[in-house]
Amino acid sequence: MNIVFSSRVESPERWFALLEQALPHDRFFAWPEVNGGDADLALVATPHEGLFSRLPRLKLVQSIWMGVDALLADPALPHHVPLARCIDPGMVAAMGESVLSDVIDFHRHHYLYRRQQAEKKWKKLRQYMAADRTVGLLGLGELGSTIGAMLRSFQFKVLGWSRRLKSVAGVESYAGAQGLAQMLPKCNIVVCLLPLTDETRGILNATTLALLPAGAAVVNVARGAHVVEADLLAALDSGHVARAYLDVFETEPLPAGHPYWAHPGVSITPHSAALTEPRTALPMIVENINRVRSGQAPLALVDFSAGY
Amino acid sequence: MNIVFSSRVESPERWFALLEQALPHDRFFAWPEVNGGDADLALVATPHEGLFSRLPRLKLVQSIWMGVDALLADPALPHHVPLARCIDPGMVAAMGESVLSDVIDFHRHHYLYRRQQAEKKWKKLRQYMAADRTVGLLGLGELGSTIGAMLRSFQFKVLGWSRRLKSVAGVESYAGAQGLAQMLPKCNIVVCLLPLTDETRGILNATTLALLPAGAAVVNVARGAHVVEADLLAALDSGHVARAYLDVFETEPLPAGHPYWAHPGVSITPHSAALTEPRTALPMIVENINRVRSGQAPLALVDFSAGY
Repeated sequence: MNIVFSSRVESPERWFALLEQALPHDRFFAWPEVNGGDADLALVATPHEGLFSRLPRLKLVQSIWMGVDALLADPALPHHVPLARCIDPGMVAAMGESVLSDVIDFHRHHYLYRRQQAEKKWKKLRQYMAADRTVGLLGLGELGSTIGAMLRSFQFKVLGWSRRLKSVAGVESYAGAQGLAQMLPKCNIVVCLLPLTDETRGILNATTLALLPAGAAVVNVARGAHVVEADLLAALDSGHVARAYLDVFETEPLPAGHPYWAHPGVSITPHSAALTEPRTALPMIVENINRVRSGQAPLALVDFSAGY
Repeated sequence: MNIVFSSRVESPERWFALLEQALPHDRFFAWPEVNGGDADLALVATPHEGLFSRLPRLKLVQSIWMGVDALLADPALPHHVPLARCIDPGMVAAMGESVLSDVIDFHRHHYLYRRQQAEKKWKKLRQYMAADRTVGLLGLGELGSTIGAMLRSFQFKVLGWSRRLKSVAGVESYAGAQGLAQMLPKCNIVVCLLPLTDETRGILNATTLALLPAGAAVVNVARGAHVVEADLLAALDSGHVARAYLDVFETEPLPAGHPYWAHPGVSITPHSAALTEPRTALPMIVENINRVRSGQAPLALVDFSAGY
């Protein structure tokens, strides 16, 4: 088969070495290349403009990222061609490391100890046990269920909110607007792992942040638009939210003048909480290429109506 | 039985409420109290001066801390009375959280991202997978084996060094001076969890730090005297050691003029990586009190000749 790769940020070289070794009889080429039009399958993340209109034979658009909100917002994306997300165990593991790191930073007061270090101040703060802390996960899909299990293994209490009630071992499940209003007051730490859809945009806003107990922490590793930034800043300024760990922002790169940069209550990472890792993403992508070849349904297809 | 509690830093009230509920027929009192001399058992951490010479009936000294180096260095400690360490699963869990947090802070470049945030700089750094990183544990006792298993569950490669070769699932075991020299060159991160003895004092020094690969990290959550501070500072200044996460120091509280405080390569916590948690320490202490009562050997006895 002919497989085109198109991304304005991911480099094809890292992928082609692995793909060509796994599938020596397929042809991989990076857009734009002469005769791109005969592609059966497109591997994409932030694809080049004009790509889709020139691929009449396409049988699958395979995202090499887990989040497909930017792709779905692209008016050029063909809706008659199936679109698959990338479920990369390495990316899920990376997200787990990042979330756990943020949760422990807050739980064990490391952000306060950094402040004390800057003041040359030696003072032990009260130690809590993980079982004393409740973490609320927004999103209970691949990421949420894996991260929930990880947090449970440390004895954190874990609650999870999703579109529909889910059954995840050890995780108390909530759904819908009413479920969110019931869950948030119990959370010392809330972690956003949701896909970005019309229903989840702005889910962390003045109203929902006010439902958190005073002194809670907010972790956002999903999409910037899940958080109403002015509302989070107000909650940080009032002290109602004690700390925010933010990896994603309404505008990325985060503009130089943004108040987050210098805010003492904010930890910023540059959308680096979890990057797709070609070594671990490869098996699923190879599987989907082989499924297209043999006429089987690809894995992890996006439901266009649900938006993820 | 009569049980005396003596500590210059731990408060007896937190313990007595739990102990009196668990053992309603025993008598708990805080030193100094009239008639302290009839104590059968002493619960201690940094005990008051003169305590031991006034307790002629003592059958067990039960430390409420895991580390007993300060007790063993106390010339007043009676060596004809057995001494037990405290193996507190809550303290072990807290240590696991602290070590994992330091390991991930280094592994996921969070210390560099904090620096970038201070400079309002948005730049993704190369993502490594946990399996790309090797963590060397100095010490493979209760702490090392538990923390080794935790790190393995994240797919870190884990090596462990101890006085004698040990068999810990998934952990490559090293022992002796030669073993240390073999292990250190493989470690991206070395974590000191050792008891402080004549053999382990100054184990991280110019010679051993030089064996680490360039750009490694050092985590010390054991005792300050495990590290030769001037040697670690030199290794940090040269860049050979990229980062040090230090919870313990030769002198505590860390003196205001110490170069660690303002060193850009050092994260300082005030000996807070893991505090004994009365709620989880209680079962073992109750068990040892009952063992003394019934004439059985207490758990976790210290080997005076080994020094832990």
